[in-house]
Amino acid sequence: MQNEKDFRNVPLKRVGIKNLSWPVKVLVKGGGYQHTVAQVSCSVDLHRDKRGIHMSRFIEVLNRLEAITPNVFETILDDLMETLEARRAHFEITFPYFVSKESPVTKKASPLKVDCVVEAEKGEVFSFRIGVKVPVHTLCPCSKEISTYGAHNQRAIVEIYVATRKFVWFEDLVEVAEKNASSPLFTLLKRPDEKFVTERAYENPKFVEDVVRDIALELEKDKRISWYKVLVTSFESIHNHDAFACVEKGDFALGGDVSQTWST
Amino acid sequence: MQNEKDFRNVPLKRVGIKNLSWPVKVLVKGGGYQHTVAQVSCSVDLHRDKRGIHMSRFIEVLNRLEAITPNVFETILDDLMETLEARRAHFEITFPYFVSKESPVTKKASPLKVDCVVEAEKGEVFSFRIGVKVPVHTLCPCSKEISTYGAHNQRAIVEIYVATRKFVWFEDLVEVAEKNASSPLFTLLKRPDEKFVTERAYENPKFVEDVVRDIALELEKDKRISWYKVLVTSFESIHNHDAFACVEKGDFALGGDVSQTWST
Amino acid sequence: MQNEKDFRNVPLKRVGIKNLSWPVKVLVKGGGYQHTVAQVSCSVDLHRDKRGIHMSRFIEVLNRLEAITPNVFETILDDLMETLEARRAHFEITFPYFVSKESPVTKKASPLKVDCVVEAEKGEVFSFRIGVKVPVHTLCPCSKEISTYGAHNQRAIVEIYVATRKFVWFEDLVEVAEKNASSPLFTLLKRPDEKFVTERAYENPKFVEDVVRDIALELEKDKRISWYKVLVTSFESIHNHDAFACVEKGDFALGGDVSQTWST
Amino acid sequence: MQNEKDFRNVPLKRVGIKNLSWPVKVLVKGGGYQHTVAQVSCSVDLHRDKRGIHMSRFIEVLNRLEAITPNVFETILDDLMETLEARRAHFEITFPYFVSKESPVTKKASPLKVDCVVEAEKGEVFSFRIGVKVPVHTLCPCSKEISTYGAHNQRAIVEIYVATRKFVWFEDLVEVAEKNASSPLFTLLKRPDEKFVTERAYENPKFVEDVVRDIALELEKDKRISWYKVLVTSFESIHNHDAFACVEKGDFALGGDVSQTWST
Repeated sequence: MQNEKDFRNVPLKRVGIKNLSWPVKVLVKGGGYQHTVAQVSCSVDLHRDKRGIHMSRFIEVLNRLEAITPNVFETILDDLMETLEARRAHFEITFPYFVSKESPVTKKASPLKVDCVVEAEKGEVFSFRIGVKVPVHTLCPCSKEISTYGAHNQRAIVEIYVATRKFVWFEDLVEVAEKNASSPLFTLLKRPDEKFVTERAYENPKFVEDVVRDIALELEKDKRISWYKVLVTSFESIHNHDAFACVEKGDFALGGDVSQTWST
Repeated sequence: MQNEKDFRNVPLKRVGIKNLSWPVKVLVKGGGYQHTVAQVSCSVDLHRDKRGIHMSRFIEVLNRLEAITPNVFETILDDLMETLEARRAHFEITFPYFVSKESPVTKKASPLKVDCVVEAEKGEVFSFRIGVKVPVHTLCPCSKEISTYGAHNQRAIVEIYVATRKFVWFEDLVEVAEKNASSPLFTLLKRPDEKFVTERAYENPKFVEDVVRDIALELEKDKRISWYKVLVTSFESIHNHDAFACVEKGDFALGGDVSQTWST
Repeated sequence: MQNEKDFRNVPLKRVGIKNLSWPVKVLVKGGGYQHTVAQVSCSVDLHRDKRGIHMSRFIEVLNRLEAITPNVFETILDDLMETLEARRAHFEITFPYFVSKESPVTKKASPLKVDCVVEAEKGEVFSFRIGVKVPVHTLCPCSKEISTYGAHNQRAIVEIYVATRKFVWFEDLVEVAEKNASSPLFTLLKRPDEKFVTERAYENPKFVEDVVRDIALELEKDKRISWYKVLVTSFESIHNHDAFACVEKGDFALGGDVSQTWST
Repeated sequence: MQNEKDFRNVPLKRVGIKNLSWPVKVLVKGGGYQHTVAQVSCSVDLHRDKRGIHMSRFIEVLNRLEAITPNVFETILDDLMETLEARRAHFEITFPYFVSKESPVTKKASPLKVDCVVEAEKGEVFSFRIGVKVPVHTLCPCSKEISTYGAHNQRAIVEIYVATRKFVWFEDLVEVAEKNASSPLFTLLKRPDEKFVTERAYENPKFVEDVVRDIALELEKDKRISWYKVLVTSFESIHNHDAFACVEKGDFALGGDVSQTWST
């Protein structure tokens, strides 16, 4: 029935499945694999002449996926295009991923969860982007400056999305996010660690504007990265709303007409 | 079909509808009504002899609901029991509600959203509970004590649920929540306000344990309140997880077997 | 402090606030206003020479917002640009909105919630988009065709986003969404209504591909609409994942390089 | 500072951490372990004389957790009580878990995600409950009966929580949930499977009331189970709200005063 000829003459850019939970293993920078649970979205284009696609074939392709490695995505897209007789395919996968963090003074290790995403697409060309959402700490420079003591601070989320010329690890992006915040977060902090983190953040106040700019400067210098978007959202501790700042590579030439996405 | 005789011999405590969005207006302490959008759950018991209930009748009862006022809940429950031929009825409604807050120094007003809940039930007796979820600010006493300067602080949520002998406004519970935190939150703060809030929080450090205890003491003294449960969740700014503390009236006699809910 | 000169030389496209709850009233097609609770995001660009923006000014602008009407958005953006000394401003507001629906046979009215969004931006030009998320019913043509009796069906969400040359009501978009599904949804259905809806859906099976195409054809014919994006997500009742299809105006010329958003 | 003497005289039932992401491995019925990502909440009581607890010690205990097995929970609770000098401890962990399902006709295997929970508590006694949230398919008996053809159907979630005398696998509870719905769900269905599932559901119509009752009868007969609560929520495909039914072991004696939880 999906193979019926369609006379409406409307080609579709994306038809597929989403919100699919799937167990995956992911290559780790330090070696080996980490097992996690992903959310998958995959889709193909639909020719103007065809009524529909066979959705079950997406699952058959996924059943052939063994691990999240640098080279697996183009293979999946090729498999999707062949299996579903399409000219474009799109694959997006998000998953929690743990990095091991050592507390700064007592050197106790514990896992910290970051959220990762990979988006790959193939039509006439293959394109590929990865991203991380890293929880960090921001301390307000203005609050520090105007107050006799103290300064409001809070948890914030740094999102970094990049397109790359050469392979970049999730761990590399996490490091960039953490070193440009007022402080990284830690799962386990003993008293000397807590003192260290509190004081370091106080010595290192940052607006969301500062964090995105410092990250952008670092990503600009990285020759592996051809495009990036950075979004920092700070859960302001004195308000019930969030502050955010966002920069995308193209913004450096703001005279041009920067394309907007609906989602930010 | 729902009226068929059922032979499985299993009475049901609750059969109903939930996740229903509904427009409501709510009586305001200062006078008048506030319009908001609620999520409604309502249910009745089902006799062991009956196969099912007519779900559409819940909507017919709700269509007769005009405003959220102190006396409306028992009326709704009676209406549900009569319409659905039941011996117990349960009604729960949650909605965002705005309180107007003035900034502490420059006295500029702006709305702050809190989440409210009302739960009413009638079987052999009528029972009734209200609750609020109020965003506040907590500053860590330990971090302040051990650090040469600064102290980590963050947004936190105070949840207060009460059963009452006499009418209590949502605004009354919001006030109790806010005055027992390190600081209330504000939607609009100019520079002198931000200085004031930052310094006041630093002078007023509180663990989640402190916040729940201070609120419990205040609720204990309020003769209108016959039962309460207080839960404070702090979005720790140096961690990626939350700290919480919880107290319920019955806990004062901890020797007894305090009943646990699955949900906390 | 936000006014300090910045030497990093990184202009920012968007700096602002988000996840702000705000009470609003919205102009209704039938006349009058509907009160609801919105989530607001607003932002401005930040010049390469300036360190930061005064976030409290967003709230001061919002305090001047009286109602959601066709002409209010450009005024808000102008106000944001002037107040924050910016050359671009962006405003996005989402809110639940109730349409009154009559059941198809017994003609009983009840409210149905849809989610609405307005996004407005001004830089060198003013642009403006509105959208709706409408819950509908889809019945699978393949399941009907291959089965001796029955067919799987489910709730689905139709999202329609449009840019317009002339004013379009949310109600108009809801109507387009509903008439192109297997059936609309209703909050209140009595037995004759339920029979009607069940049979009509069975007579009117639709893949997600069919729904987006039929909506696209209708939007193409509407001279008021200059751009659209349609996304249909079906909560497949035989799977634990969702099926989706998506079309955007530009897709009609698929040879060109269709810009992708990260978010779909 | 947490060790300071507290003079407010308010013992606390629960002080702890929650919303902590943690990598775990879970014992599988068929043998071996499954790796997944959990959300953890753990807490202890706080004596009236003590100001606070050392939150970092929860993480130190978790760092000693190796796998989710039947005997690990009492060990964790003992460890928490000793480490935190408490008389009660509570531990709750939720995680996605995959069961392998074969399609009913073509026998193709694919993973289906269910959500699992374990709650353990120790004070004077040790108590322990497990639960599953299983997505299933329900087809409305009334819609089938009154309609000339078709019947509305939808995805539903069956939640089963049990306290046990002897060990029960998550897989056992998933099986009970699936066999008492109109049909199980599958991740991968080819055409003969889809025909089978569509027709079987049509032959097997069930109200939410029917599903909870049939599950209750089955759990009543299982000698391993000393307590249960069953909640079925059906995402009604003709409405934008959900239908639900709920039964708890104690409900069989409805004359008594069934304790209500705030959360249902």
